Amino acid sequence: MVCKVVKVGGAVVEDPLAREGFLKAFSAVEGEKILVHGGGRSATKLSADLGMETVMVEGRRVTDEAMRKVVTMVYGGLVNKEIVASLQSLGVNAAGFTGADLSLVKSRKRPPVEIGGEVVDFGYVGDVVSVNAVALKKLMDMGIVPVLAPLSFDPGQGLLNTNADTMAGEVAAAMAGDSEVELVFCFEKEGVLDSEGKVIPEIDGPLYEKLRSGGVVSCGMIPKLDNAFGALARGVKSVRITDTGNLNGGTLIHG
Amino acid sequence: MVCKVVKVGGAVVEDPLAREGFLKAFSAVEGEKILVHGGGRSATKLSADLGMETVMVEGRRVTDEAMRKVVTMVYGGLVNKEIVASLQSLGVNAAGFTGADLSLVKSRKRPPVEIGGEVVDFGYVGDVVSVNAVALKKLMDMGIVPVLAPLSFDPGQGLLNTNADTMAGEVAAAMAGDSEVELVFCFEKEGVLDSEGKVIPEIDGPLYEKLRSGGVVSCGMIPKLDNAFGALARGVKSVRITDTGNLNGGTLIHG
Repeated sequence: MVCKVVKVGGAVVEDPLAREGFLKAFSAVEGEKILVHGGGRSATKLSADLGMETVMVEGRRVTDEAMRKVVTMVYGGLVNKEIVASLQSLGVNAAGFTGADLSLVKSRKRPPVEIGGEVVDFGYVGDVVSVNAVALKKLMDMGIVPVLAPLSFDPGQGLLNTNADTMAGEVAAAMAGDSEVELVFCFEKEGVLDSEGKVIPEIDGPLYEKLRSGGVVSCGMIPKLDNAFGALARGVKSVRITDTGNLNGGTLIHG
Repeated sequence: MVCKVVKVGGAVVEDPLAREGFLKAFSAVEGEKILVHGGGRSATKLSADLGMETVMVEGRRVTDEAMRKVVTMVYGGLVNKEIVASLQSLGVNAAGFTGADLSLVKSRKRPPVEIGGEVVDFGYVGDVVSVNAVALKKLMDMGIVPVLAPLSFDPGQGLLNTNADTMAGEVAAAMAGDSEVELVFCFEKEGVLDSEGKVIPEIDGPLYEKLRSGGVVSCGMIPKLDNAFGALARGVKSVRITDTGNLNGGTLIHG
């Protein structure tokens, strides 16, 4: 059985037109599929509207109690449910979940860490401990398409903020025990681009080393590629980095 | 098969202590159960924090586009997911849904209505058309406890704001085709009170007429009781109006 785990970023889901295009492409994907979405920009906007300051450290949101409420509202409510409603209107039998629903994604609250000589407490941020692949499989066997918000669950702490790329990688790795999994990262660009701005159609381990040491791959792309190779190492069959219009295009990453 | 459909109001779920007590009582309920929650006070609070004005007509919220986002965040996100996380921590395998998830509760956008000589457009408010009892039954057969936010779904309009009492009544009536359903309305008071403030243990149709014509039942209780008798007329076995600590106490309403 083939299963696609598709991650779509905030810039796409927060632009109504881009989202509509993406959801049409996603609805056309055959077979089992899981959608993991972001929503950081909307969280930042709601925080600002509420007069709250957003603090990011190395691209990650510091999540105090007030910010936890914001991300629960935005990721678990607004973004998730608007996607679910759009998919249902497109005829896809979607259901939206956080990591707390059915204990789908359990995590542990991250302890304070030292970054650049300073101790940073990310607050209500969770590092994934386990994914309930059995429950996800059962839902898909019922014809349900799970839509996952980037919120994980620590039974002692409640909902925790978790990076959506990481969550998608963890879900893909967990499903790989049972299915042939393709992990798809959908974002604004057509794929991984070379120095002339052209899409690199395929990347394997040796080519990645070459691209990286040659400085061809941009800084922003490195965590995405590291994440991709990490997923491959954990049994995911292939990873694709592509734009929202073509879930079978872009750059294919394999072992 | 017995199924309990429990509705819990905003005043309970928005007070952490009251909510904890209620969720403990709910987690102890044996057999199949569905939770429907409100959250109006939190929606009003978030609106105020965002500088938005809340307009209520006959106790119902006028829901423009900005207010729809607020109720989607608050009902579908914050309140729903905090309840789900608490239930999971109590060992209940809860999953939170809106009417859009699995198209569980379909509705039609309410057209403008004349109230007291004025035309009122409630905006994104939905009147329930159908409840997907088959999907709810399948979820419960899997051991899942559905937690429903008061948001329904019109495929042409998206998510619509729906009164939680009405939603609970509709869900109970839909489940009555297959199960013996008890509908429980949980709120701050011990039950339906008589003129001396004592709980009336049982009310049937003739007694309701008597209480009502005698002015014993307060104005606020009349819609609840009308809703209860409406549910009985649609096949629900019994309705209970009780406080949060005792889901088997309060006032039992039957045909």
